[in-house]
Amino acid sequence: MPIFEKARELAVINSSAAVIGWDQETYLPEAAAKHRADQLAWLSSRAHELSTSDAWRRDLEEAEAADDGSDFKKTANLREMRREFDRATKLTVELVARDSVASSLAKHAWADARERSDFSTFAPHLETLLGIAREKADLWGYADEPYDALLDGYERGTSTAAVARLFDEMRPSLREISAGAVEHSASHAPSLPPGPYPVAAQQHFNARIAASIGFDFDAGRIDTTTHPFCTTLGPRDIRLTTRYMESDFTSSLFGVLHEAGHGLYEQGLPQDDFGLPSGSAVSLGIHESQSRLWENHVGRSREFWEHWYPVAQGTFPQLAGFPLEKFLRYLWRAEFSPIRVEADEATYDLHILLRFELERRMVSGKLAVKDVPAAWNESFRELFGFAPEDDRHGCLQDIHWSMGGLGYFATYTLGNINSAQLFAAAGKQQAIADAIGKAHYLPLLDWLGKSVHAHGATLDPAELIRSATGTAPSTDAYLAHLKSRYL
Amino acid sequence: MPIFEKARELAVINSSAAVIGWDQETYLPEAAAKHRADQLAWLSSRAHELSTSDAWRRDLEEAEAADDGSDFKKTANLREMRREFDRATKLTVELVARDSVASSLAKHAWADARERSDFSTFAPHLETLLGIAREKADLWGYADEPYDALLDGYERGTSTAAVARLFDEMRPSLREISAGAVEHSASHAPSLPPGPYPVAAQQHFNARIAASIGFDFDAGRIDTTTHPFCTTLGPRDIRLTTRYMESDFTSSLFGVLHEAGHGLYEQGLPQDDFGLPSGSAVSLGIHESQSRLWENHVGRSREFWEHWYPVAQGTFPQLAGFPLEKFLRYLWRAEFSPIRVEADEATYDLHILLRFELERRMVSGKLAVKDVPAAWNESFRELFGFAPEDDRHGCLQDIHWSMGGLGYFATYTLGNINSAQLFAAAGKQQAIADAIGKAHYLPLLDWLGKSVHAHGATLDPAELIRSATGTAPSTDAYLAHLKSRYL
Repeated sequence: MPIFEKARELAVINSSAAVIGWDQETYLPEAAAKHRADQLAWLSSRAHELSTSDAWRRDLEEAEAADDGSDFKKTANLREMRREFDRATKLTVELVARDSVASSLAKHAWADARERSDFSTFAPHLETLLGIAREKADLWGYADEPYDALLDGYERGTSTAAVARLFDEMRPSLREISAGAVEHSASHAPSLPPGPYPVAAQQHFNARIAASIGFDFDAGRIDTTTHPFCTTLGPRDIRLTTRYMESDFTSSLFGVLHEAGHGLYEQGLPQDDFGLPSGSAVSLGIHESQSRLWENHVGRSREFWEHWYPVAQGTFPQLAGFPLEKFLRYLWRAEFSPIRVEADEATYDLHILLRFELERRMVSGKLAVKDVPAAWNESFRELFGFAPEDDRHGCLQDIHWSMGGLGYFATYTLGNINSAQLFAAAGKQQAIADAIGKAHYLPLLDWLGKSVHAHGATLDPAELIRSATGTAPSTDAYLAHLKSRYL
Repeated sequence: MPIFEKARELAVINSSAAVIGWDQETYLPEAAAKHRADQLAWLSSRAHELSTSDAWRRDLEEAEAADDGSDFKKTANLREMRREFDRATKLTVELVARDSVASSLAKHAWADARERSDFSTFAPHLETLLGIAREKADLWGYADEPYDALLDGYERGTSTAAVARLFDEMRPSLREISAGAVEHSASHAPSLPPGPYPVAAQQHFNARIAASIGFDFDAGRIDTTTHPFCTTLGPRDIRLTTRYMESDFTSSLFGVLHEAGHGLYEQGLPQDDFGLPSGSAVSLGIHESQSRLWENHVGRSREFWEHWYPVAQGTFPQLAGFPLEKFLRYLWRAEFSPIRVEADEATYDLHILLRFELERRMVSGKLAVKDVPAAWNESFRELFGFAPEDDRHGCLQDIHWSMGGLGYFATYTLGNINSAQLFAAAGKQQAIADAIGKAHYLPLLDWLGKSVHAHGATLDPAELIRSATGTAPSTDAYLAHLKSRYL
């Protein structure tokens, strides 16, 4: 089918850009940045050109006209390719260009404003980006409110109202759990024996663990970057990165576990469909469910460390006299931090609830840009009990808005919710639960492979969760998990 | 100028392929090879498409018509772009496709034939490739013999007769020098104190040396591969590789010195002209002159080691009681090996002379393919005094023919000749000679930068040598160098 051939070609282009982008983050010499940007821009132009071309449209229309619906996967692929094509082509060239300039200016302005903790210089940029976001939403179309159209770009088939319902449901429990966790943690002052934990030993330990949970090193690697990430350079080429602190080996390890969760999803997608929706991840909320599952449900569990802590003690001699219980308390420490990226499992979602509510009001026009700092601080005080010391530790902390990434934040908490629901469903199978009890995770991975990865993007996220767990997305399992771990 | 913009775009495409190719050699996971080949094929098609397009032709013609010859660099750029365009477009699409299939089949057949040391199964492939090479030569055109047209692809402006003249001139001296060197070496049985020379220490030592000769690590790196190479990922992004033997630290070091020689050339090319002939290396023979200069004239010299040997002794404790004289004798060891890639400085060129003569006779039809093994063994015996034990150690040892690379080998010895002529010319300047005496090489690099690198490909190789040294290419300096070191 010609349109599928075009989709595979697009994947070759995009994955080439991924190779070049990976090298940019890992090994690029300092002076090479300018030309590297030219290479990425060229590939991105070719990808855009191809995926919005008349030939693409024609091939897609022909395939749609010829499709009799008898092949579920094919029909799903065409439906999703249509969705992506429409999202890309409904925007005018003028708007895309304006958006690109505005984001580029905004990113610089944001970095500068954050540095000086001065929201007023970022405010006009945010105003512009909000206007562009509303224009996009109008062109894409939406059912209830413009925010729906933005959210749909990251978590398709989910409505703002549906997310708000989940978040509202969680809110009281999250406040109770986080407050309890922080109080308990403060009374125990958990800590780790001092370093150094040598980087080479961390690398060896992390690689052993990644391999044991099923990450395939014949089809992937781990390298070092300032900010950990996972990227796909081909159907059998998944690159993870992490960063190392000599004072705390768990920092690099949880980076690896989180990114390996993303990587296991990518390695589990149907290889032969690489470049087609059926061979692609479905959404950020599902992707994050995989990373959070391996990071938190597996990597922070007692069962996991009953097996791995003796190995850690053999690797890092300073752990020898440090008991497992104290180590677990360290892993489960909780603190109210003003900064999202430093937040722990017990307090993280409060940061997301705040951002989601603010974004929604900003996009709908109910919250004026000039009032964002005050609204942020008020919400923050309500959720955390104190106000951030300045905007740098408040509404200026995240890069997302400056890149026009409105609608993104919610997927972090959707990922947390999904991770718990999936983990609980898998654990209902006795064989999987027994294996998990012995820190054997391949049966769990196998279940995720069949229930989640194998579907690619043929089902909407909510359908996928229902198909995998038997119930619609719900916060029950997640709140139960948090309560049992933190209260 | 539109044609120059197109040339820069082509450089973006080709350098993107270089990033992807570099990663393929350094960090590619095992299972990722198939998709990687798709990425490289896609980029190579785009490069071919662009550089042979009607638009390219039109822009080039327009620029040529508008050129009044008043700007030397511009005129040279247009002349060289014309040369490349004609070489690419004079071949028919049918021939290019046939060539690609034939080379691909031949490469597999060669690997298999070499494995089993059975020339007969490779012979029909070589026959086909020779036929294609003659067809190409006819389409490209030549003055005296078809081999001229093949050579011109690697060393432009050089004729077969001119190369033959140089090689014939060298032949008696080379035989005398190599025989003397091998005899002297055999009587001293030079060796290095046993390893291990730890890889991390080698890396540190090599990087110090590379930096000291001027390799800019802000615009380049050194990584590890089975076969050392140098590749250009952008005007300020030059990647070297080497390989490590724990038993001999000089193996990785000379890999680095050789590749750094290539890299210094690439780093010295005019950055703003990246993608234009004036910002590109001119030929393989000049490129190899830079690698051989740093490897042999600098890296195997007494002056170099008078400075660096104490550092090596500090780095590798087993060298402590091993005197510099013995170490130099180890570096200058010579042996008649049947295998070119294992050959030392004193015997290397004999391998090239043999191949050049055989290739020339094969292409002209004076040597039938079926007679190649016998002719090889006869020539080999004449030059080295013994015949290789089998074709695997004889006419099947090199990959070049199986890739259709007829005409390539000569550039290795041209590089050696050029390296000596350039090094001798630089050394005539007292300040450079004084600095070299103290193992300070930045004045030498500066001279090479101005005399060689800065010209890009605006001069033919022979013109470049004359412009840099004041005389036409000659074997005098090279033979003098070999005699002084080995006799």
